Amino acid sequence: MTDWDDPHPAVDLDDVVHQRVRFGILTVAHQARRVEFGFLRTALGLTAGNLSQPLAVLERAGLIEVEKGYEGRLARTWLSLTPAGDRALREEVAQLERLIHRIEHGGQDPLP
Amino acid sequence: MTDWDDPHPAVDLDDVVHQRVRFGILTVAHQARRVEFGFLRTALGLTAGNLSQPLAVLERAGLIEVEKGYEGRLARTWLSLTPAGDRALREEVAQLERLIHRIEHGGQDPLP
Repeated sequence: MTDWDDPHPAVDLDDVVHQRVRFGILTVAHQARRVEFGFLRTALGLTAGNLSQPLAVLERAGLIEVEKGYEGRLARTWLSLTPAGDRALREEVAQLERLIHRIEHGGQDPLP
Repeated sequence: MTDWDDPHPAVDLDDVVHQRVRFGILTVAHQARRVEFGFLRTALGLTAGNLSQPLAVLERAGLIEVEKGYEGRLARTWLSLTPAGDRALREEVAQLERLIHRIEHGGQDPLP
């Protein structure tokens, strides 16, 4: 049985988070806590150019903190998840679990 | 332990499917099998204008089939998931489950 009166869980997905590369960045940052730009680029199989724009979106939204510094003489950029970023990722996961439950069981959301 | 040598599961998400409204459309079509445009619009809380563009993307990608007809004298549009759409939705769910597992367990993917 599907309760079509409820708003569909897809409606509540956050467009900032629910985007392939941005979701990948948040996931890696969540796993690694503090991640170096080059490492993130390799982990996601992206070029530096393809990573900058989604990172800027996440930084503007306050979900990722960017820290610039040096490792010896090499300029480095480190990224970490902010508390708001952590919350946004948890909310995305909760919404996705509701959606997956609907897809797999064809019905109502599980009880909270 | 995280196996950083493996490609990250976010890399393999399909950009056509991994978009909020398009993912919602596929989910509703999967649940309802054949869904009327107005019903889909209400289920996702969208205007007709906001629904047309993502539907066109899904139709061009061969994931949704659009059928126009009449119900009495009223013009109606019905949408249904194609076999390719069903496969794409299943792949999205499998990838999301891998990502959620990483986020929740901070580690490797579960065994297949």
